[in-house]
Amino acid sequence: MTGNKLILVTNDDGYQADGFNALIEAMLPLGDVVAVAPREAQSGMSHAITVKQPLRFHKIKHGERLQVYVVNGTPVDCVKIAINHILHRKPDLLVSGINHGSNSSTSILYSGTMGAALEGSINLIPSVGFSHIKYSNDIDFRAAAKYSAIIAERVLENGLPRKICLNVNFPDVEADNVAGIKICRQTMGYWREEFDRRIDPVGVEYFWLTGFYHNEEPEASDTDEWALKHNYVSIVPVQSDLTSYETIKMLNKWNF
Amino acid sequence: MTGNKLILVTNDDGYQADGFNALIEAMLPLGDVVAVAPREAQSGMSHAITVKQPLRFHKIKHGERLQVYVVNGTPVDCVKIAINHILHRKPDLLVSGINHGSNSSTSILYSGTMGAALEGSINLIPSVGFSHIKYSNDIDFRAAAKYSAIIAERVLENGLPRKICLNVNFPDVEADNVAGIKICRQTMGYWREEFDRRIDPVGVEYFWLTGFYHNEEPEASDTDEWALKHNYVSIVPVQSDLTSYETIKMLNKWNF
Repeated sequence: MTGNKLILVTNDDGYQADGFNALIEAMLPLGDVVAVAPREAQSGMSHAITVKQPLRFHKIKHGERLQVYVVNGTPVDCVKIAINHILHRKPDLLVSGINHGSNSSTSILYSGTMGAALEGSINLIPSVGFSHIKYSNDIDFRAAAKYSAIIAERVLENGLPRKICLNVNFPDVEADNVAGIKICRQTMGYWREEFDRRIDPVGVEYFWLTGFYHNEEPEASDTDEWALKHNYVSIVPVQSDLTSYETIKMLNKWNF
Repeated sequence: MTGNKLILVTNDDGYQADGFNALIEAMLPLGDVVAVAPREAQSGMSHAITVKQPLRFHKIKHGERLQVYVVNGTPVDCVKIAINHILHRKPDLLVSGINHGSNSSTSILYSGTMGAALEGSINLIPSVGFSHIKYSNDIDFRAAAKYSAIIAERVLENGLPRKICLNVNFPDVEADNVAGIKICRQTMGYWREEFDRRIDPVGVEYFWLTGFYHNEEPEASDTDEWALKHNYVSIVPVQSDLTSYETIKMLNKWNF
């Protein structure tokens, strides 16, 4: 490795995903890249870690400025393995993605992409999760890759506050049609589940998790959902302290 | 079912765990219980959902005031299945646990117990996750069960603020030695990993995730770690909005 910046790239769709390779390409002009990704797709894995199975990893690409490893685990496992067993120093930046599908609003809680970014920030690495709102295998990542590089460069220059990471989502438009970058808060919303009930060949029912997103505040122009709807790249700064400080005062009045 | 309060019980250690059954027993004096738990232990599953496999569930106990179901999924899957396919109305309370092992401080991020509680709160159900700091199979749950009932009763009486759940942890002492209940904030800390490297019979290395918790602020008496160390039951109110509002102002000064 050279004296360049060291960038750790990971994702949750697995090392073969187009978004992962687009992100690696976007980072190479900014520094040396070590990419450590799950062997298999890990969508919806949130901040999960593997405690019941042993982990294995192996190198699949060894270049001077790009090394790629695969791990049989979750995105958070990848970050832990990278920090503890692959990298010889703390990286200057961790980027995760580019996810195939939105991680705006409440979806952040289920997101393996953002699990990895949060894990980086807990370990005091400036960390950013990138997601494209289109969920399919034919995403045009060019605009997302361009803006990923712009945002990564700013983070390398300025750093991030202690234990804060960024949740970046890209609208599904070409670069020329991006309205700009907008700093947002997480939209209040939730997923309305509609389990798809089916019957297997031996007559037993099973369910596929499905559903649709419900935005509780579609008019709020300071939210990530609003920004994406209006073709902005949305950035939500994210913290790992989940304490509701307002509620502490209320609970102290309860008579236990 | 009767006209009683309806309490949904879930956990992440699986339906056979002692802590799960202790929590069911603690809730039965407060209302009718529907318990929906993972078939297998799901420790470390955080807010993960199952998207690549179909879900199945079946009833293993059908009493007038207690029904128990098992699901081949994560704790969050259990909550989603319960709300959408098992329960005929929104429960008055969701309780998750009692977990075998602490979910204080940063451990909340990895916790399936708290994943389930957060999922309940997103769905506007007053929700509480309970965890015992001892991680083993021979935990004395009597004190934890007593205080679980006390806290659950208060939540049934008072409700909780919109989208706020509680993260309750129990010290490893008998009920008479509990110092009281303390409302706290989440301690700043992290896990220092020490992967246990081994070689399998065919000579290939593999790793078990292990490590120890590092408290970054051991003297801070308003934290859950401090409370537990001093034999208090700790309660941290928890929110699903991860936005760092302070950082929004800072990022708006960046020149994108």
